[in-house]
Amino acid sequence: MEENKEKSTIVLFSGELDKAIAAFIIANGAAAYDHEVTIFFTFWGLNTLRKEGPVQVKKGVLERMFGWMMPRGASKLGLSRMNYAGMGPQMIKHVMKKHNVLTLPQLIELAREQGVRLVACTMTMDLLGLQKEELLDGIEYGGVAAYLGEAADGKVNLFI
Amino acid sequence: MEENKEKSTIVLFSGELDKAIAAFIIANGAAAYDHEVTIFFTFWGLNTLRKEGPVQVKKGVLERMFGWMMPRGASKLGLSRMNYAGMGPQMIKHVMKKHNVLTLPQLIELAREQGVRLVACTMTMDLLGLQKEELLDGIEYGGVAAYLGEAADGKVNLFI
Amino acid sequence: MEENKEKSTIVLFSGELDKAIAAFIIANGAAAYDHEVTIFFTFWGLNTLRKEGPVQVKKGVLERMFGWMMPRGASKLGLSRMNYAGMGPQMIKHVMKKHNVLTLPQLIELAREQGVRLVACTMTMDLLGLQKEELLDGIEYGGVAAYLGEAADGKVNLFI
Repeated sequence: MEENKEKSTIVLFSGELDKAIAAFIIANGAAAYDHEVTIFFTFWGLNTLRKEGPVQVKKGVLERMFGWMMPRGASKLGLSRMNYAGMGPQMIKHVMKKHNVLTLPQLIELAREQGVRLVACTMTMDLLGLQKEELLDGIEYGGVAAYLGEAADGKVNLFI
Repeated sequence: MEENKEKSTIVLFSGELDKAIAAFIIANGAAAYDHEVTIFFTFWGLNTLRKEGPVQVKKGVLERMFGWMMPRGASKLGLSRMNYAGMGPQMIKHVMKKHNVLTLPQLIELAREQGVRLVACTMTMDLLGLQKEELLDGIEYGGVAAYLGEAADGKVNLFI
Repeated sequence: MEENKEKSTIVLFSGELDKAIAAFIIANGAAAYDHEVTIFFTFWGLNTLRKEGPVQVKKGVLERMFGWMMPRGASKLGLSRMNYAGMGPQMIKHVMKKHNVLTLPQLIELAREQGVRLVACTMTMDLLGLQKEELLDGIEYGGVAAYLGEAADGKVNLFI
């Protein structure tokens, strides 16, 4: 980490495919511009980081219900508009492939390769009953203090 | 007000419980970091500031309809996802209590104690037919000029 | 363009009337404050820029479907809440007129007169099958690099 690198942060609050794609395209762009980029995943945005398969963890009833109702990972997210019971995401994925746009899992992979920091919000993990074992390996964990520490020096700070 | 305090601003446009919680957690965090924080409430975000009980004010028919259809205050907001006719907010409130997270009314109270400025957008109050008597006592009122005056010096400016 | 002008940027991702109004009110306010303002239209936000009438262009089936399903221009957008099959937008437009608030098409016109740059995201135009002929004349086109070039120097950067 160099002293004079620009910082940029994104809070990914939303759990929709289209918003997650927008977040990762901006994050990857900023990383390519040599910004030090951090994405904070909170509330429904945490679903972007979920592993695809079921993970064996001990949970209370409410937490288990949240776990069932929320999408398991980047490939399962719906759209914020025109979701049409999952047909919309298929259409978007189809045109993304046609236009050689990276898929969301590929955008996440690229972000990690570029050193974008992925930080899961521990407070909302507690609220939604998500445990570390259920999220992608190798991410970071933090709270609002970690976020503000980065954002206070950030050039571009977005809430998505 | 000291000269060298960092400023941060949040536009709270959305009227959902989860987004309002996120806004106030960030605002309270920034205030704890000694930022001078202002939240501008516009459109549906204004509902966060409504008093709970009905307030006697003179209104036109349309304004009265908006008043009926919109939630009365921080305890009545729904979720942006998984609202399930109000069951979702109950689940979230239940897990928040279980994890000792402050409720939204408590987060608002804490914000006021920390000196976070709460500014209601007068133009959208007009549009939605909300009058000062219907909003919490002791808040401020302003328009886009007031917002930009703060945001132009802001370190962290978010639209939620 | 003067050297020392403040820059502000807005990413308009959302395709709803209320969010587009908020974006243009902030943009016009910032322009009145002599900021150099750029709005980047991506995903559903692109619908704000669509011409009202049908435009003859060659398209694939999926792109044609997206074109049918999405609103044609600023006068056709719905609300993010209380849309009620189009009744909500009529109510909002009615109270905007009553309170002498500019309509969205007028806000767009004012933005252009004030020199606000309107930039359509070419990547999402491809994804949604929107062609230049279908969008308002005289706008600009760009990608994430163009956005970051502005936002890195921006005082107020919002994602709406």
